[in-house]
Amino acid sequence: MNCYVYGYGKPEKERLIVVDIGVAFPDMDSTPGVDLILPDIAWLEERRDRIEAVFITHAHEDHIGAIAHTYGRLQAPIFARAFTANHAKRKMAENGHPADAVTVVEAWPDQVDAGPFKVGFLPISHSIPESSGLVIDSPAGRVLHSGDFKLDRTPLVGEAWDPELWGEVSKNGVKALICDSTNVFSPHAGRSEVTVGPEIEKLMHEANGMVVATTFASNVARVKTLAEAGERAGRSIVLLGRAMKRMVEASVESGVLTEFPPTVAPEDARSIPRENLLLLVTGSQGERRAASAQLARGKYMGLEMKKGDTFLFSSKTIPGNERGVIQIMNAFSEMGVDVVDDNSGHYHVSGHANRPDLEEMHSVVKPQILVPMHGEHRHLREHTKLAEAKGLQGVLAVNGMMIDLSGNAPKVVEYVETGRTYLDGSVQIGALDGVVRDRIRMALNGHVVVTLIIDEQDEPLGDPWCETMGLPETGSSNAPLVELMEADLSQFLGRADPKTMRDDEALEQALRRTVRKTAQDEIGKKPEVSVIISRLT
Amino acid sequence: MNCYVYGYGKPEKERLIVVDIGVAFPDMDSTPGVDLILPDIAWLEERRDRIEAVFITHAHEDHIGAIAHTYGRLQAPIFARAFTANHAKRKMAENGHPADAVTVVEAWPDQVDAGPFKVGFLPISHSIPESSGLVIDSPAGRVLHSGDFKLDRTPLVGEAWDPELWGEVSKNGVKALICDSTNVFSPHAGRSEVTVGPEIEKLMHEANGMVVATTFASNVARVKTLAEAGERAGRSIVLLGRAMKRMVEASVESGVLTEFPPTVAPEDARSIPRENLLLLVTGSQGERRAASAQLARGKYMGLEMKKGDTFLFSSKTIPGNERGVIQIMNAFSEMGVDVVDDNSGHYHVSGHANRPDLEEMHSVVKPQILVPMHGEHRHLREHTKLAEAKGLQGVLAVNGMMIDLSGNAPKVVEYVETGRTYLDGSVQIGALDGVVRDRIRMALNGHVVVTLIIDEQDEPLGDPWCETMGLPETGSSNAPLVELMEADLSQFLGRADPKTMRDDEALEQALRRTVRKTAQDEIGKKPEVSVIISRLT
Repeated sequence: MNCYVYGYGKPEKERLIVVDIGVAFPDMDSTPGVDLILPDIAWLEERRDRIEAVFITHAHEDHIGAIAHTYGRLQAPIFARAFTANHAKRKMAENGHPADAVTVVEAWPDQVDAGPFKVGFLPISHSIPESSGLVIDSPAGRVLHSGDFKLDRTPLVGEAWDPELWGEVSKNGVKALICDSTNVFSPHAGRSEVTVGPEIEKLMHEANGMVVATTFASNVARVKTLAEAGERAGRSIVLLGRAMKRMVEASVESGVLTEFPPTVAPEDARSIPRENLLLLVTGSQGERRAASAQLARGKYMGLEMKKGDTFLFSSKTIPGNERGVIQIMNAFSEMGVDVVDDNSGHYHVSGHANRPDLEEMHSVVKPQILVPMHGEHRHLREHTKLAEAKGLQGVLAVNGMMIDLSGNAPKVVEYVETGRTYLDGSVQIGALDGVVRDRIRMALNGHVVVTLIIDEQDEPLGDPWCETMGLPETGSSNAPLVELMEADLSQFLGRADPKTMRDDEALEQALRRTVRKTAQDEIGKKPEVSVIISRLT
Repeated sequence: MNCYVYGYGKPEKERLIVVDIGVAFPDMDSTPGVDLILPDIAWLEERRDRIEAVFITHAHEDHIGAIAHTYGRLQAPIFARAFTANHAKRKMAENGHPADAVTVVEAWPDQVDAGPFKVGFLPISHSIPESSGLVIDSPAGRVLHSGDFKLDRTPLVGEAWDPELWGEVSKNGVKALICDSTNVFSPHAGRSEVTVGPEIEKLMHEANGMVVATTFASNVARVKTLAEAGERAGRSIVLLGRAMKRMVEASVESGVLTEFPPTVAPEDARSIPRENLLLLVTGSQGERRAASAQLARGKYMGLEMKKGDTFLFSSKTIPGNERGVIQIMNAFSEMGVDVVDDNSGHYHVSGHANRPDLEEMHSVVKPQILVPMHGEHRHLREHTKLAEAKGLQGVLAVNGMMIDLSGNAPKVVEYVETGRTYLDGSVQIGALDGVVRDRIRMALNGHVVVTLIIDEQDEPLGDPWCETMGLPETGSSNAPLVELMEADLSQFLGRADPKTMRDDEALEQALRRTVRKTAQDEIGKKPEVSVIISRLT
């Protein structure tokens, strides 16, 4: 989830530009039920009148995903190159915001004036078309923001890594390079996109049945590689999954994709012999609703996998998604489908610069200061060490750290409170609001609801009763858990002093304690307890 | 989670032996709040009088973990070699069962008589001491059950792979080899435990500060390798974490571990310069309560990590555990600790046989039938294909499949219903009981409790009221969600016909529908709803 802010001006009067506003994806461990994780933009919102513009480096969700969810609160104009802007405009429209808040920008040497800043989009290769670094000029000097990148001289789709261009831009001195750190632990130089085609083609030739391949839809170069390999192997190409079709369309529309092989509609594919078919599908990360998962469960758009077919993951599983991916692999295995993943290293290359590539970037730009970004703490730390070993000034900037780059050495000047906001259904909730914490507690401990009616004389009207959810019906004594709880509650109420009976809070606490003790004795765990006391008045 | 059953005799009269009764570990995605996952032993329990014995191949939790939790229902005698039996007896005692239900067995050529079976423990190398294959003889012939294994000729602790011994046992013909499949996708021959020592020693020498290393405590050979490397690098050894101390003790007791370097108590370590310390700690999988995680959060037993220290994962992260491990890595990174994992391939070797090793095993045993075990479906399938390519009869046996091995070709004769039982607190619940499903639903959707009192005339007594847990307080209209729900419920009740008011079930459904609609409109999600109707009579 990326969101960077650059400012220029006197303290607390700086004019600001924002680079990327992305999302992160929830998981059951820490964010059950949440739909999307957004950056907490409270700090930016308070300074809304000082924001000149938002710049989006590329169309990956962790960089662009939150622009429409935050636009209502920031109202700042958005700038991006054509392919990225195509996605941005769609997101804005889908969320009821004006698509024309997004302005299409040409690549460098064009520049956008944004208050004291001039910002240019400097093409660089990555696993999505038109990814760009940003050249950020201000009276304090030039800063390069790398964006996500790899050094690919033959990327197939989109612009190649152009060291001359980056060198030219850097030749009069770069104050700071803010630089992707994702693959700093990968010791060998990255491989070009062009290396995967021949291997994939070989696999498509040798496969007997239908071939189904998945990759991130936004990796348009890979989608093209897969389609062309299929075509050469005599297969008709079918695009399956909304994102896959949309991404190819958007790429053709914005001109980044040309010469894509002809495709066949799913309904027409059924009449083609399966050994002449290649399906390109969404769901490389095992997403439950994507085409790959649907095929793993049975038919999708009238197509299904059969014994002897091949399924290719032309992708890497992002840490945290292993379970979903493995589930799909085994479902296919049960159908007799051969599953091929990138275990061999043949069918996928990373979109990020490896350690030697980072060093090459440092050498080309020769910045005064290096600020690692895009990675966990351990990646930023390693990248800082790498820079310092090369004689650069490295600074390990964590979330919320405001760094003054205007002097000779970087200086931490402030820690801004940052955090996460959850999009939960249609509502945005703070990560610390306790809503998700309560869900996790119910999931771990189960939930008991105690209801008690108290009459006008502060006496229980009838017995209290319990309702459980997510708890076993019986425990060690084999009697129904609910009945045991109710009996213990009744017993407690029979002895409770009038003062407790009049005090809702004290009574609630006592009833909760009673229920938790009964549960602990019976089932060995302490549930969450909600107590509802209603007083007849 | 392993549990295998062998039977001999007339159908429905077979005498049975059980091999391994292990556990699996829960996760938040599918089993929130659960403590352990056990095999569902209903089928075995119904045939308890036909079970001759339980044999445990080795002391890994996925093979031994459920013996004490199932002993009460099976009551069958348990056999294991000394080191494994040591653990088994402790588990039995901890759960209130007689430790002497566990009998210590010597290795092959000793055999245990178990009804029509004779069973011998055939030593083999693995990542825990005294791992054994089983030689299972019956009037129908000899079957070899490999257990978990690797082909390590120099395992440091425990017995080496002895192809002569396995060949000797197999020379008169083996009906079937039931064989570990875990690493069937690893194309290169496995490396010996002996190869990791020199690399680890180099790292311990070069590290400046304290070194902390983690591995599975049960990987006693690795613990010894780490300790000896530390000792050679001039470091005092501290064992941290209950399992680490217990495993070393059990290994010394049962005689599998000799010449372990002297250790220092944590409280004495504080007076030793940190560059002379090596801590061996539990928590290689990022477990929250293990020593590694505690050190990542701060002090543990008075010891803490500091800038310049080194933390070594001499282990592989099991799929599904990535998040916990990465969290620890980043916490250490924030402290300025250098984290080293097995990315380089230098500091860990697998405990399972790789593809060429499996082929070697097939060649040594030359079984008539190969039954792959221990792996996901895709592993079993690949192993079956591997066997068949070599001219063996392979049979892909999934959970619950009963296979007749007595004929010339394996024959599937029955599908036994199998499943999972959850240990939840102190209670065992069925995986399909709905308890965990309800917890997951509450975690995803939140929980609303509606309470309504109805008087003797079937009229609402006062207004219904709502209590929410795991839901935001306000939604699109900015009014409190609870109040909106209550208003909509009151409105519904004002219009409800007398028939509905008399019918608890119909009323409940109507109230639930009302609340879910209000929530959908306000917050864009439909919560779980419990309705509690109390009638004054």
